[in-house]
Amino acid sequence: MTSSPVSVVPVEAPKEEPLELSLLAEVEKNQPWICPASAKSIRTVNPIRAIVDPIVANMKTGEERGDGKDLISLALGDPTVAGNLPPCPVALTAVETALQSQGHAAGYVNACGVPAAREAIARFHNAKSADAVVIANGCSGALELALTALLDPGTVLLVPSPGFPLYQVIAESHGASVVHYRLLPDQNWECDLRHMEELLGLYGPHRVRGILVNNPCNPTGAVFSRAHLEQLVAFAERHRLPIVADEVYGDLTFQEHPFHPMACVASGKVPVITASGLAKQFLVPGWRVGWIVFHDNVQGSLREVEAGAKRLAQVVLGASHLVQMVVPKILDSNNQELRQWKADLKLTLEEQAKFLSLKLKDCPGLEVKEPQGAMYFILRIHVSKFGPAIQSDLDFSSLLLQEENVFVLPGIAFGVPGFFRVVFCGPATVLEQATKRIQCFCERHFQAS
Amino acid sequence: MTSSPVSVVPVEAPKEEPLELSLLAEVEKNQPWICPASAKSIRTVNPIRAIVDPIVANMKTGEERGDGKDLISLALGDPTVAGNLPPCPVALTAVETALQSQGHAAGYVNACGVPAAREAIARFHNAKSADAVVIANGCSGALELALTALLDPGTVLLVPSPGFPLYQVIAESHGASVVHYRLLPDQNWECDLRHMEELLGLYGPHRVRGILVNNPCNPTGAVFSRAHLEQLVAFAERHRLPIVADEVYGDLTFQEHPFHPMACVASGKVPVITASGLAKQFLVPGWRVGWIVFHDNVQGSLREVEAGAKRLAQVVLGASHLVQMVVPKILDSNNQELRQWKADLKLTLEEQAKFLSLKLKDCPGLEVKEPQGAMYFILRIHVSKFGPAIQSDLDFSSLLLQEENVFVLPGIAFGVPGFFRVVFCGPATVLEQATKRIQCFCERHFQAS
Repeated sequence: MTSSPVSVVPVEAPKEEPLELSLLAEVEKNQPWICPASAKSIRTVNPIRAIVDPIVANMKTGEERGDGKDLISLALGDPTVAGNLPPCPVALTAVETALQSQGHAAGYVNACGVPAAREAIARFHNAKSADAVVIANGCSGALELALTALLDPGTVLLVPSPGFPLYQVIAESHGASVVHYRLLPDQNWECDLRHMEELLGLYGPHRVRGILVNNPCNPTGAVFSRAHLEQLVAFAERHRLPIVADEVYGDLTFQEHPFHPMACVASGKVPVITASGLAKQFLVPGWRVGWIVFHDNVQGSLREVEAGAKRLAQVVLGASHLVQMVVPKILDSNNQELRQWKADLKLTLEEQAKFLSLKLKDCPGLEVKEPQGAMYFILRIHVSKFGPAIQSDLDFSSLLLQEENVFVLPGIAFGVPGFFRVVFCGPATVLEQATKRIQCFCERHFQAS
Repeated sequence: MTSSPVSVVPVEAPKEEPLELSLLAEVEKNQPWICPASAKSIRTVNPIRAIVDPIVANMKTGEERGDGKDLISLALGDPTVAGNLPPCPVALTAVETALQSQGHAAGYVNACGVPAAREAIARFHNAKSADAVVIANGCSGALELALTALLDPGTVLLVPSPGFPLYQVIAESHGASVVHYRLLPDQNWECDLRHMEELLGLYGPHRVRGILVNNPCNPTGAVFSRAHLEQLVAFAERHRLPIVADEVYGDLTFQEHPFHPMACVASGKVPVITASGLAKQFLVPGWRVGWIVFHDNVQGSLREVEAGAKRLAQVVLGASHLVQMVVPKILDSNNQELRQWKADLKLTLEEQAKFLSLKLKDCPGLEVKEPQGAMYFILRIHVSKFGPAIQSDLDFSSLLLQEENVFVLPGIAFGVPGFFRVVFCGPATVLEQATKRIQCFCERHFQAS
């Protein structure tokens, strides 16, 4: 070689000296060898696990129990479990087509997603352009992307209580934290704006990086009115805070409760990052297709956050190419078959929800707030009206599983002790069986004063 | 309501006082409203983009150029691009079957992956059990999971130079950093153990959290001998450092260069985290199925890191359920058809590699190190032997694209200026065309002294 290239790590021949042991390694030889885990991996904890895992550990089949009562789960937010809500057929066909296409949708895609999918998402959300869309690994991946771009260690995100625990997991994983604002059970589980105002006073506008609004809401099943969304937008505008709108349930709302996307209500006054995906709206949660859409305000306040999220998206490509190919077909608003399918799904969910809430209203000691959309609602347990075995929602859930083999999540898993959450995705037969058992259970433990 | 439940955020009626504007918000009203991006999103930068994007921006079709020279890319490590290497048929059939199965593989899966897929991966890698496996969003996702569990801000990972830039992107995204150890071009691109020793002396064993070894290697195309891997294991054992083995190319090696998995060589002496996936070995990079396997040592040194990685995996589920269903079928070592397909693929790659390296050896001013596996190799450019238009590998790549419409990545993108990388995935016809153009280019600019 006659020329030696300029190199970050100069390429040169190895030296001839023998290797030597590092002194410190020598000294420590007799200590146990433990590779330390990163602080981030230590503080990344899903609080729901500590609550739910001990319950799940006690699960038994009807046969194991000896009473023939098979497990009925109203716990998991997976609409596919019972089999009565199969995936949207358009999704299945789209994957088939992609598989058979030239290239088999097997190649790498742009870090922000397949162009046709981003365009379809932009149209679906009335976004400015496909460039405002980043496709992610499910809506959880979308939320992680958005919050990672927004939150620094020590900063704060306002999140609803009760609410989906993932917001907290993500924020704390990044060394940030969440502050819970109250949802009002007697006011359709709306956001308590006065409480939000108080919290901002406590934490100061500079520490708070945004407001997370989940609508339609998990676990409450509430759907916010346009008027309430306008209040939230005004609040965000006054305090100059962006809104992260978790809208993964999209327009899965009941007839009298139309869905209003936050970005439409904000209409350029407030920057909105919308997170959504195919999971719930098209019944393919395990396929992992989510996205964020940047709806900036007229000042372009989100510019840096959007650029940051796109840089973050470069590290690990978001969703499988194969399932990204579903997006342009399934978000096609001109597909009449698709519209009918969606309308049928909404009707089915509404019927199941009404059935379940009606039946549970008859259970002594429970108080039902009727859901307006999504796949869940929460019920208040009047704990004082039950016997000594039921002192809390956790007792209620554990004992219900033990005695009736019905699994519901205690409210404490969503930050709202004294309640429990039910999923109304199962078919009427399952829901009927479940409600009968819950009714027996409540009657057995209810102690009228 | 007679009982008020104990609640994290007390549920109570809203107060009646009117809302008040926060004073600070009032004061700042006339400042521009900019939502700050997180520091993490700012420091997450893929350095390859700054190098490659200006080159890509100049790309033109043969028609746009007017000389009919269509673009030939030997740049992207995507084996599917040219169409001559279609995905493994077993993969296509497995997705078809999953689509038609009850449930359509649409439901949520365990955060660490589908049990049958984890078991298949454990067998494939001779891991202790399926519990040692975490399925991730592609091998990039697998590497991110492993490095996030290992690295804290301020800590260091030893990585090869030249090497895949993603290691640095991930480490810096977490506020950690990489230190490059040299690979030796004249010693089969092996790791320079003396240089590694020096670096440990410089950074101290407590700051360094692990050694990343990539074998088969991108961009060099080298495959390490068992003897060299044993040296690396001895080094890691002496310094009590875990090895992260990026083995995404698996046994895609040529006949005389068998692949030895790092974990087999380490055999319990040193903890190894193996990262791999379906992308390259089965030609479905866009499907995003990767995994990490924890091969702990006899002391169990990795215990905390493994637990941390599993907690991190809970935040965003790894890979699409649909493509996870491919894993048990495609890693079935008893499938004769599959073994034949793999053998054919390896032979094809070897033929293409030999063809390309033989042709490029004839180009004046270039020096070829023959590849032994993977999908790439790098060539030294004797810059001093070219005319004034070529002062660097970046000049070489840019001018080659401009004059011949052949796209190769400059070595600087992999930390090795004075080289360039070629991908040998394309069919012979394309490779022949490419080499003709590169030869013309070199002859045109070569200036014998």
